[in-house]
Amino acid sequence: MARKRQMKLSAYLVGTGMHASSWRLEEADPGASIDIEYYSKLAQTAERGKFDMAFLADSLAINEQSHPNILNRFEPITLIAALAGATSRIGLVATASTSYIEPFNLARQFMSVDRISKGRAGWNIVTTRDLSGNTARNFGADTHFELEHRYRRADEFVDVVRGLWDSWEDDAFVFDKARGRFFDPAKLHRIRHKGEFFAVEGPLNIARSPQGHPVLVQAGNSESGQAFAARVGEVIFAIKYNFEDARAYYKEFKEKVAAAGRNPGDVYVLQGISPVIGASEEEAKAKQKRIEAFLPEETIIGFLADYFKEVDFSRFNPETTAQEAGLNTLRAANPDYGKHQPVIARENPTLRELYSLIIGSFSGDHLVGTPEKIANTLEQWFLEGAADGFMLMAPVLPEGLDQFVNQVVPLLQERELFRTEYEGRTLREHIGLPVPVNRNSAGSLTR
Amino acid sequence: MARKRQMKLSAYLVGTGMHASSWRLEEADPGASIDIEYYSKLAQTAERGKFDMAFLADSLAINEQSHPNILNRFEPITLIAALAGATSRIGLVATASTSYIEPFNLARQFMSVDRISKGRAGWNIVTTRDLSGNTARNFGADTHFELEHRYRRADEFVDVVRGLWDSWEDDAFVFDKARGRFFDPAKLHRIRHKGEFFAVEGPLNIARSPQGHPVLVQAGNSESGQAFAARVGEVIFAIKYNFEDARAYYKEFKEKVAAAGRNPGDVYVLQGISPVIGASEEEAKAKQKRIEAFLPEETIIGFLADYFKEVDFSRFNPETTAQEAGLNTLRAANPDYGKHQPVIARENPTLRELYSLIIGSFSGDHLVGTPEKIANTLEQWFLEGAADGFMLMAPVLPEGLDQFVNQVVPLLQERELFRTEYEGRTLREHIGLPVPVNRNSAGSLTR
Repeated sequence: MARKRQMKLSAYLVGTGMHASSWRLEEADPGASIDIEYYSKLAQTAERGKFDMAFLADSLAINEQSHPNILNRFEPITLIAALAGATSRIGLVATASTSYIEPFNLARQFMSVDRISKGRAGWNIVTTRDLSGNTARNFGADTHFELEHRYRRADEFVDVVRGLWDSWEDDAFVFDKARGRFFDPAKLHRIRHKGEFFAVEGPLNIARSPQGHPVLVQAGNSESGQAFAARVGEVIFAIKYNFEDARAYYKEFKEKVAAAGRNPGDVYVLQGISPVIGASEEEAKAKQKRIEAFLPEETIIGFLADYFKEVDFSRFNPETTAQEAGLNTLRAANPDYGKHQPVIARENPTLRELYSLIIGSFSGDHLVGTPEKIANTLEQWFLEGAADGFMLMAPVLPEGLDQFVNQVVPLLQERELFRTEYEGRTLREHIGLPVPVNRNSAGSLTR
Repeated sequence: MARKRQMKLSAYLVGTGMHASSWRLEEADPGASIDIEYYSKLAQTAERGKFDMAFLADSLAINEQSHPNILNRFEPITLIAALAGATSRIGLVATASTSYIEPFNLARQFMSVDRISKGRAGWNIVTTRDLSGNTARNFGADTHFELEHRYRRADEFVDVVRGLWDSWEDDAFVFDKARGRFFDPAKLHRIRHKGEFFAVEGPLNIARSPQGHPVLVQAGNSESGQAFAARVGEVIFAIKYNFEDARAYYKEFKEKVAAAGRNPGDVYVLQGISPVIGASEEEAKAKQKRIEAFLPEETIIGFLADYFKEVDFSRFNPETTAQEAGLNTLRAANPDYGKHQPVIARENPTLRELYSLIIGSFSGDHLVGTPEKIANTLEQWFLEGAADGFMLMAPVLPEGLDQFVNQVVPLLQERELFRTEYEGRTLREHIGLPVPVNRNSAGSLTR
């Protein structure tokens, strides 16, 4: 009998939590984002909860308005290399950009971490959105690439990286001591790539890992981003704020995967969730209020003024509704804004709520409440076609992860919606992804 | 009373050892260069021996003739991030090139590892020698930069990196929860660098570590390389094959440091050594013979033919002397060759010996013998002005490191030439280097 389909869980690890005010809570350690013991404990907690993976986001520029948790933090590739030693089963996903790093260096570092972790690495592929040009100016450019250009470059980048990962066939190393033959030269391959953006000869100086190569994670949201994700992503990270939007997105995205000639069942969609968990509904709501209260008015208004540019926010306060501020009829200059428009039109959030929505720590009513309520929401989303699993973006860490592991995971396990033990050792085994065929081994069969 | 001056020790960690045949020994694990437990054990052994640091070399290209230990190996920055968790005191130095990586990425990854290791990281700055163009072709270029260009770029690169490391003053983070003030914006600095090679605005999204920033290690050997090392290096890695050469180099190099306006006492010269240790002189010599015997004739002759290009080596065998082959009168096209010419002129090595010399696993008579003999050699070099310490490039690993730690280190400790316990926690504390002043803090005093 086939095992029941189970959901995938990923823990988004970020300092004191997703909420911009999380560092201000009495119990918060504001130095968390630079504390390796703290991150090790988070990863160990997620592993205790049998999570498929821990996820590290990234940005390549900051300014005075940046979220406290990202002002001073570890670089994610080095961080997952360190976390590999603090854990033994959980997958470790680091974000890295195709716009500001050489493909040879990226291919190599990710395969190195995949080896260090014995096949537990993942690469969250981003192209870097950089409206302000802050990132470009850290890398010798005045303005960032346009969206189309970025994804064309990302396509070529990923092709080069995958080619480099296949430099050595899996049985290339013969280790024949007697004859002094370390490897079989016929099984070492150069990609000799010359494309629009890159010229890379190869070979890579590291061979494939126990899972073949790192899992490719993608969170593109624009039209181009989704098309790219449908072509190359193996795990997809999306954020939708209600069931209908999530289900519509899930259906459409899987169709895009099929249209790209891939099996939709081989691509796993994780919906981002920021639950606020309490012993009772009231306790959860009070918790949410407590942290929202720490958001200073000038942070909210300053952020939105910067985000919308052409609107004069000085007339508004955090309790002004989007409708009162005229945001529901605004055409968005910011491509990011489009994804929020349906929610704004339907729910008419206050500016305080809108702020949380945009910075990604919004917790809708269906995710504020008891562990049972949270488990019910996840069960519905999972069983009714809105998700293959979830990215836990806890508003407050470590509390939000501890609670989820201690109180929600057991409910999901009771309902046989989530594993009670790791079945395998690699991230691909956890997710259920096949080991990618080495393009050179496959080729040699037909030659 | 001032403590007696003590030597610095660094362990060069590379798979089965420096010797090209080390993987062929019966006891060797040819998969060592890709085994994280193996590397963790090496680093732990060096730490048990109270070594100042472990050192990871690098290259950004391979070909069919490359040393088996570098064909398939970890990327060093990710490797030291992993080793940080397997050790608690020893410094961890990774090699990275100023020619093929963005300064923002490098500054960030090294500071991240310096944070992960709590102030134990070092950066071995290389500009990448690439006569074949193999490296350039992995990074979109057909030919590599010339020497002069490389070091001009390296100067600017290091300046940018150090500037980025100083983005945050040490007391920038005020963590004032009550007032919602995470940091003091006056203590966040952008470098706004626009130079010949790089334009980098900053700031970096990670603050300085407990040791300020990673220790800067350099091994430049050419005229330009030594000048660069004298300007920026804090620990210098040189390889000289006898006492006179080592002492002459040491004296000249320290003069260059003084000429560059720095205190020669703040720059530590480590001489590379490849000792072969035996219970008796005979045992050590037999050991050396045993491993040399594994070097196939075609490896030696093929390597030298490639190295010298204009010489026809097909007429020679490994026992031909350099004089018989006419190498002692040859003008070197390979800039690397210059450093070997005095040794070749004086010692007239066989081609087998010359091969070992060039690939860096040559063990002169003074380093083949009992632990006492090795300790005597190091004592002489250290006390008579040839070295501030040593880089142990063991021909065979783990044996060469185990033996050195178990048998040579205790002798050095008895003679009070080496520490019996770590005095501090950071690599700078081990070496005796000051925490670098933050350029912005210093500036603010005079504003």
